[in-house]
Amino acid sequence: MVLINPLLPLFFLSCFFWVNHAASTERSTYIIHIDKSFMPKAFPSCHHWYSNTLDSIKSTSSDKHYPQPKLIHTYDNAFHGFSAMLSNEELKALKNSPGFLSAHEDGPITPDTTHTYKFLSLNTAKGIWPASEYGKDVIIGVVDSGIWPESPSFKDEGMTEIPKKWKGICQVGQDFNSSLCNKKIIGARFFNQGVVAGNPDVTISMNSTRDTSGHGTHVASIAAGNYVEGASFFGYASGTARGMAPRARLAIYKVLWDEGSQESDPILFAGIDQAVADGVDVLSISLSYRTIDLYENPIAIAAFGAMEKGILVSVSAGNRGPNFGTLLEGIPWAVIVASGTVDRWFSGILTLGTGLTITGWTMFPARATVRNLPLIYNETLSACNSTESLAEAPDGSIIICVNSFETPEFSDQMGYVSESNARAAIFISEDTSILRSTSFPFPGVVITPKEAQNVIKYASNSSQPTASITFQHTILGPEPRPAPAVSASSSRGPARSYPGILKPDIMAPGVLILAAYNPEVSAAYIGSNNIALSSDYNLVSGTSMACPHISGIGALLKSAHPDWSPAAIRSAMMTTANPLDNTQKPIKDMGMDYDIATPLDMGAGQVDPNRALDPGLVYDVTAQDYVNFICALNYTREQTQSIIRSRYNCSNPSTDLNYPAFVALYDPLEERSTLTRRFERTVTNVGDGAAMYKVKVKKPKNSSVTVSPEKLMFQKKNEKQKFYVMIRYKTYREYVINHGSITWVEERGKHTVRSPIVVTPAEPS
Amino acid sequence: MVLINPLLPLFFLSCFFWVNHAASTERSTYIIHIDKSFMPKAFPSCHHWYSNTLDSIKSTSSDKHYPQPKLIHTYDNAFHGFSAMLSNEELKALKNSPGFLSAHEDGPITPDTTHTYKFLSLNTAKGIWPASEYGKDVIIGVVDSGIWPESPSFKDEGMTEIPKKWKGICQVGQDFNSSLCNKKIIGARFFNQGVVAGNPDVTISMNSTRDTSGHGTHVASIAAGNYVEGASFFGYASGTARGMAPRARLAIYKVLWDEGSQESDPILFAGIDQAVADGVDVLSISLSYRTIDLYENPIAIAAFGAMEKGILVSVSAGNRGPNFGTLLEGIPWAVIVASGTVDRWFSGILTLGTGLTITGWTMFPARATVRNLPLIYNETLSACNSTESLAEAPDGSIIICVNSFETPEFSDQMGYVSESNARAAIFISEDTSILRSTSFPFPGVVITPKEAQNVIKYASNSSQPTASITFQHTILGPEPRPAPAVSASSSRGPARSYPGILKPDIMAPGVLILAAYNPEVSAAYIGSNNIALSSDYNLVSGTSMACPHISGIGALLKSAHPDWSPAAIRSAMMTTANPLDNTQKPIKDMGMDYDIATPLDMGAGQVDPNRALDPGLVYDVTAQDYVNFICALNYTREQTQSIIRSRYNCSNPSTDLNYPAFVALYDPLEERSTLTRRFERTVTNVGDGAAMYKVKVKKPKNSSVTVSPEKLMFQKKNEKQKFYVMIRYKTYREYVINHGSITWVEERGKHTVRSPIVVTPAEPS
Repeated sequence: MVLINPLLPLFFLSCFFWVNHAASTERSTYIIHIDKSFMPKAFPSCHHWYSNTLDSIKSTSSDKHYPQPKLIHTYDNAFHGFSAMLSNEELKALKNSPGFLSAHEDGPITPDTTHTYKFLSLNTAKGIWPASEYGKDVIIGVVDSGIWPESPSFKDEGMTEIPKKWKGICQVGQDFNSSLCNKKIIGARFFNQGVVAGNPDVTISMNSTRDTSGHGTHVASIAAGNYVEGASFFGYASGTARGMAPRARLAIYKVLWDEGSQESDPILFAGIDQAVADGVDVLSISLSYRTIDLYENPIAIAAFGAMEKGILVSVSAGNRGPNFGTLLEGIPWAVIVASGTVDRWFSGILTLGTGLTITGWTMFPARATVRNLPLIYNETLSACNSTESLAEAPDGSIIICVNSFETPEFSDQMGYVSESNARAAIFISEDTSILRSTSFPFPGVVITPKEAQNVIKYASNSSQPTASITFQHTILGPEPRPAPAVSASSSRGPARSYPGILKPDIMAPGVLILAAYNPEVSAAYIGSNNIALSSDYNLVSGTSMACPHISGIGALLKSAHPDWSPAAIRSAMMTTANPLDNTQKPIKDMGMDYDIATPLDMGAGQVDPNRALDPGLVYDVTAQDYVNFICALNYTREQTQSIIRSRYNCSNPSTDLNYPAFVALYDPLEERSTLTRRFERTVTNVGDGAAMYKVKVKKPKNSSVTVSPEKLMFQKKNEKQKFYVMIRYKTYREYVINHGSITWVEERGKHTVRSPIVVTPAEPS
Repeated sequence: MVLINPLLPLFFLSCFFWVNHAASTERSTYIIHIDKSFMPKAFPSCHHWYSNTLDSIKSTSSDKHYPQPKLIHTYDNAFHGFSAMLSNEELKALKNSPGFLSAHEDGPITPDTTHTYKFLSLNTAKGIWPASEYGKDVIIGVVDSGIWPESPSFKDEGMTEIPKKWKGICQVGQDFNSSLCNKKIIGARFFNQGVVAGNPDVTISMNSTRDTSGHGTHVASIAAGNYVEGASFFGYASGTARGMAPRARLAIYKVLWDEGSQESDPILFAGIDQAVADGVDVLSISLSYRTIDLYENPIAIAAFGAMEKGILVSVSAGNRGPNFGTLLEGIPWAVIVASGTVDRWFSGILTLGTGLTITGWTMFPARATVRNLPLIYNETLSACNSTESLAEAPDGSIIICVNSFETPEFSDQMGYVSESNARAAIFISEDTSILRSTSFPFPGVVITPKEAQNVIKYASNSSQPTASITFQHTILGPEPRPAPAVSASSSRGPARSYPGILKPDIMAPGVLILAAYNPEVSAAYIGSNNIALSSDYNLVSGTSMACPHISGIGALLKSAHPDWSPAAIRSAMMTTANPLDNTQKPIKDMGMDYDIATPLDMGAGQVDPNRALDPGLVYDVTAQDYVNFICALNYTREQTQSIIRSRYNCSNPSTDLNYPAFVALYDPLEERSTLTRRFERTVTNVGDGAAMYKVKVKKPKNSSVTVSPEKLMFQKKNEKQKFYVMIRYKTYREYVINHGSITWVEERGKHTVRSPIVVTPAEPS
């Protein structure tokens, strides 16, 4: 009916779009992907065409709010299409319209959830900070719950003029005027048409880019917060806060709303689309998406468009760990970030009347006075298992509570002692995970059973045992646990979307990260009746916090190497990542009782920004390479085009993406056997000149690894060399993950270029 | 029996001493004043003589701890004598010893209890701060509960070398090594022999100059604390703390002990005596003494010796107000300091769902989150009179509590709501004095009944009323009450020791003063079970806090005018003091329902340090003038010599001290009549050269005031001129206080030299 106009510019060749789940039962929100090459010449824009299309499919059934299908968003940058509220009948009609590629119903997104710069060895003397001018003129688009613009982390002291390339705006909204943007927050936009469309009766409580949760504020300040002296979480982690790229710019796209994220796809899509149009350099997306298939995942689709424009997209792995295969959306053209611990611990110091001192753990959010108080230990009280039994606790005493499998949970014990007349508590527990929580409403410390021996002995045998506790201590170092360790909740590979590419890619700090927050939201509780307290800075954990570390470091790399592709930046981070912790032993997995972590937990390892600045070699990937990859995924034409749009061809499909990692899959349901997997890779010399590299292999258990050639000679910068890897590996009838690495070591040079190898089942059972 | 040796140096001519109340019932501690001229030549020192004397009077009765009288302290500087534990029998024998002047039993002392520099217009651009080099090289002796040397207020950053004249030491003691002294704390000594003597079984819990209470630390930092950024009381009053004389030195004399101050006289005496010997320039004594008679008051006696050596002695008026005549120890040779409010208010901002904003008062010691919570007002709940009735308070609500004469007290209401499920409370009260307390354990604000009208209306008539409260606001200015106002608790003149000289002399800030504190002592409580919190900086009120303001300002004046006598410094402060508040109206009296304050409340008015730097004229007083005054007091020879010692003669007694104030007394019990009171005064021109002054009189009600001459001509600096004042005044059969002033106004010059006049009954009924 409509012919393709060969004169249309390339980026108009594909249209693409989507929509909202109705509050009325009749209509739902759909994201519609359109092949824009079908657009009749008569329409001045996609928007007109989409509107006209929707008019034409008008349902015969009526809806009190929307007598006809409602166009919510039009997308033109990261992808082409629109979102709309459609009835089943209307959707059916739309599917027969020209250019229709695919439609899928909108799904929910959930937000995952500063010494880290030191922990990552960032410093002002040398390395990536000075080399990148602290990320100056790089624009990080943060797609999240908005921002608290008054946070001191977003002051623009020390910032130069806004880069001329910037095309974004500071959108005026509720409690948000344009003067709230500055040379740090250079853009602010909000997207909630989907929320309103999905629920016409809803009142948007904060109809602007202002962050009502704190999540977006936290994430943005981790990536690019300015320097703020005297930041702390109620006295813990105190110091000068700063983001990874303290001079980078922030462009804020609010897509998360208090009024629910059920109708979030079109919003999310619109946010990313706009960020691409505005000219961001890095996209930071600390959001989880429940969809497995890449062609239905708005982040994956939008990220593809961003990648095409050279934008580095950093996405949180999600917090569904620690089980195998809990990472759903392993977007191959994004950096998927796992979360690790930091070498920082929050403590209370217990001093017995004898002078013996024990460094316990606490997060009591104030400076409690616990000085020379009577110390009480007896079996009845120390179960700390009810308000009634603790009524016997002497006034102003310190109660020793034993926490074990036989007693109430820690938080319940805390509740009981809070209601007693005791002034403080000592909790004896082996469960160190309780201290990952920042909820500690009653003065006390947690100590280990081993440490407790002397305490119990003293409390039991002395005539007048006393103790003191001081709070708000912050200690650094490998004790009591080496760091980083992979956070238990960090989602684990292999990615359900495609297990053959290593995901997550890399790990960054994501446990108890101090960063800016919404000061109107409760960040801690105190007392038995849970008086809520707030703070300008909050300690939050999750891959949401790991992701913006990578976004900020990506911005530094972008600033230092403006010519590098997103894949090159990712490769630089991955091949220089550190697989060892601060005791120089392999990084452990908190979720597996501190067993050694695998690349499925942490990707290539902990990001090392200074080394990433100068990786020696990079594994680059072009947009066409990703197209070839997608074309090999057995998607339908429509599914494929949802991602790649119509301008690419699928003539050269291949799943062997030029990735700085090697994944050898097997199926535990199949008979035991030995398999062979071959890989082809091309590395680009990004060192200063000629270089020779020699391979060093650490083979996975029960595998053989052959690399050929074993030496790579580069005559000059930017020269490419190809090599081949063959992995022969044993498979198992159970879930066994073996891992190793291939490292290119520069001869008479400083570079080592390491890629992990994983031998793993493809899917969870 | 013993002849006076005319060759003994003058300062040996008088000896003087004192002692301790025994834990045993048999002996008490006495302070013994000795005429040292009686000392036999055979003794190398007073100490030997005193010991020998005590041996000779050994009681026939025995004491298990002390078989003979115990010499506790020997005093040789501010005065001469000793302290000792004596039985009645021994005391009797001592009274017959040669040189005995007087003995009195030891009495208890009680401690009275920083935007103020701005409130007092101190600034770095001009005036007394730069003129005095911030008090550099002036040494302030603080006689109090010791010091917390680690407080940031006592760091010595920016301090120059210790003045060479300094003779003191840094006494080593428990938890106090000599390295804790520095260029800020140049001396530290502790005096507790009296405590031990009085109670031989006592264990001194902190046997060193370390402050276990916080009082001494607070006082010292008000006088001369160094600059400390980020000081606050749990978020209130935040800013850069500093003392009045940030570059002055501190010498600490610990005389207050946790183990009781019952046996304090000898300690106090010893502390002041040592400070004089060590070479302090200013003595800051924030202690109250229960004694009326000057000859029995160790502070008065010790201060006399200090005054003789040119040391300015600043003493708190005490916190026994607001009634007439509550000032007991109106030491004429010291500066007695009244306490006034500051123009700083701590507030919580209440915002109703309508957007209406009310600035209430709060001191809740944390940043509570109270956002858009249901607002509850109904008559049953709002009495807030029991835990039971408040059990009905909805979870997470804000309860409106009415506080009145018919309801429980504010603190009780606070307790009841703390135990409810409410998240916050709004207290409606007319009693603004409740906010002088820093105890506010539950999130809430206090608002006035007038402000409450809109709140109650909204809470009663709206379907879903909500409110928010934010905390930790600090506001400055004359609202809601002009400042300064005389603190209700500040002790009022006329002084019981001698009502004819104006006491207090002057007023300084003493209400909710932020200064350094012992961080191990509870400074606030939170929650229903009163979790205790501590702080490096505490807000404390009392004349104890006013006194060190004057000590610090005195140090600045001493630095700027090293040749001025203590009386000249006091005169400069008094004649330039401001009788007006920050609304340019007469200073009010909080203790008298904000009626106009009289000089009996505040002395000459609020200290104005920059004006005191250049007063034009001063009313000087020599040591002999004070002797003449004491000689006129109808004391016995022994009583007189207890203060003045033997080297002065009483040939010219006169109560008309050359004071910059005029007190006309009457007896309300006498027949109504008109009295006449004459005064002679001498003023010294401390201006730069020739000057002419003309008198301006503001006469008290029902009085006439004649000044002659009415003009004073000075040809040169330091010239003295005499003038006479006659006040004819009506007396009353009741307690009526009328006041006015005599001001010498420089013609064609900037100086005005104001002295208050008070017509008052002499004593309370």
